[in-house]
Amino acid sequence: MEVADAFKDLLTGFPTLEPGHVWLVGAGPGDPGLLTLHAFAAIRQADIIIHDSLIDDRILALAGGGARLENAGKRGGQPSAAQADISRRLVELARQGRRVLRLKGGDPFIFGRGGDEVMALATAGIPFRVVSGVTAGLAGLVSASIPTTLRGVNQAVILATGHGADQPGGLDWAALARTGQPLVLYMAMQNLDLIAEALIAGGLKPETPAAVIMSATTEDERILVANIRDIAAEARRQSVGAPAIVAVGAIVAARGQLLEIAARASALLVE
Amino acid sequence: MEVADAFKDLLTGFPTLEPGHVWLVGAGPGDPGLLTLHAFAAIRQADIIIHDSLIDDRILALAGGGARLENAGKRGGQPSAAQADISRRLVELARQGRRVLRLKGGDPFIFGRGGDEVMALATAGIPFRVVSGVTAGLAGLVSASIPTTLRGVNQAVILATGHGADQPGGLDWAALARTGQPLVLYMAMQNLDLIAEALIAGGLKPETPAAVIMSATTEDERILVANIRDIAAEARRQSVGAPAIVAVGAIVAARGQLLEIAARASALLVE
Repeated sequence: MEVADAFKDLLTGFPTLEPGHVWLVGAGPGDPGLLTLHAFAAIRQADIIIHDSLIDDRILALAGGGARLENAGKRGGQPSAAQADISRRLVELARQGRRVLRLKGGDPFIFGRGGDEVMALATAGIPFRVVSGVTAGLAGLVSASIPTTLRGVNQAVILATGHGADQPGGLDWAALARTGQPLVLYMAMQNLDLIAEALIAGGLKPETPAAVIMSATTEDERILVANIRDIAAEARRQSVGAPAIVAVGAIVAARGQLLEIAARASALLVE
Repeated sequence: MEVADAFKDLLTGFPTLEPGHVWLVGAGPGDPGLLTLHAFAAIRQADIIIHDSLIDDRILALAGGGARLENAGKRGGQPSAAQADISRRLVELARQGRRVLRLKGGDPFIFGRGGDEVMALATAGIPFRVVSGVTAGLAGLVSASIPTTLRGVNQAVILATGHGADQPGGLDWAALARTGQPLVLYMAMQNLDLIAEALIAGGLKPETPAAVIMSATTEDERILVANIRDIAAEARRQSVGAPAIVAVGAIVAARGQLLEIAARASALLVE
């Protein structure tokens, strides 16, 4: 595919990553095609890229030859300590005069501790910029052919994290259930039994359809559909686990209708 | 800025828009830099682009020389009739063997009638693909320096439409208020008085901070902050209106803290 002059003109108009500045940029949900042009431009300009673990190699390969890559992935470590370490590292590199890119999965402000990082940068007097990315929850539903909003079905959608659902002071799942609106859950696999129980205790019908979208938008994507009462057990049985997005609500049933109509009319869904 | 060979390699691996197929693709919230690489590749391949009204000219300029652009904007028309017309037009063009791109603002599945369009395509037996975009609600908050999620403040965020809030059978705003979680409202300016009243009647404190982000992520962006009780009147007074995103909740106060800390430390926020 040819790259238009209009594309180069567009890139030329984008902001410049200055030495001593830090950009927090969303890399999207996994599929490199869901990277934004701003993220692409940021990757091309950075001296150093502090990136999450789940960033695709084809995205990291876009970096300039002189750029250094640092994996800040927190898998298996102590999250809190590591988060403070990441913020400290960003400040340190900016003070060394580097062009610093903090490349985060999804959107930097959706359950990714991006708020903590900008507060740390602001406190240290480091100039920063935040660039949105496609968030995994919404992209996961698109990838699974679940219409996130559908006329006559829902007028809202709730993005929630399942992290900490086993701790006191967490989300009021019953109140979420009573809104009657669908849920899109991040980091919910570990506590999925608890969450499903709490939703049902709050009045959600046990037959409400749910879906787990594992490794959403990547070549490893797997989709499991079951009702909310059974979904956690079914996911264990089929070894469908983290990283995953969970969708709960009538919109999941619309997926079945869509696939059925498409199959009947021989309309394939292009992958 | 130089375009890496790795970028061209990446594009080469993307799907091909075949004659007779329709792709529904999100163009993001306004800023052309928030276009995805998949959207860019789709624009380069399309014979015909049926686009929403608010797509930036710099995005449309990326189209190939032979491509035809059709504005499907529904502003001021009868939405329902126009929506059926759009779906019919997509089917008609696909049957003519065109490579059809339906380019939608934001994300195709967030309050954009994308669900209706894929149902129509499936019913007609037209092969289709849906590509996520950056949704205006989340990008609007990033652009306004409002941390959409913040540790210790919220574990969920509710995306809701204000369209139809003056009709019976709409959203249960009181139930949304009782979740204690922040709201991000689309198409809410016309019914903002009603919505604010309903949220307060549901138990939301009248002092809860709110923000209107008008023309989010574009050069025309304007940000207004007030409490939920006063925000609709204040928006009228300052002529801040549609298109806009409204944020409601404690996360809006975090913006004030962030800007204050940054000002004290002389950390500018890069635009």
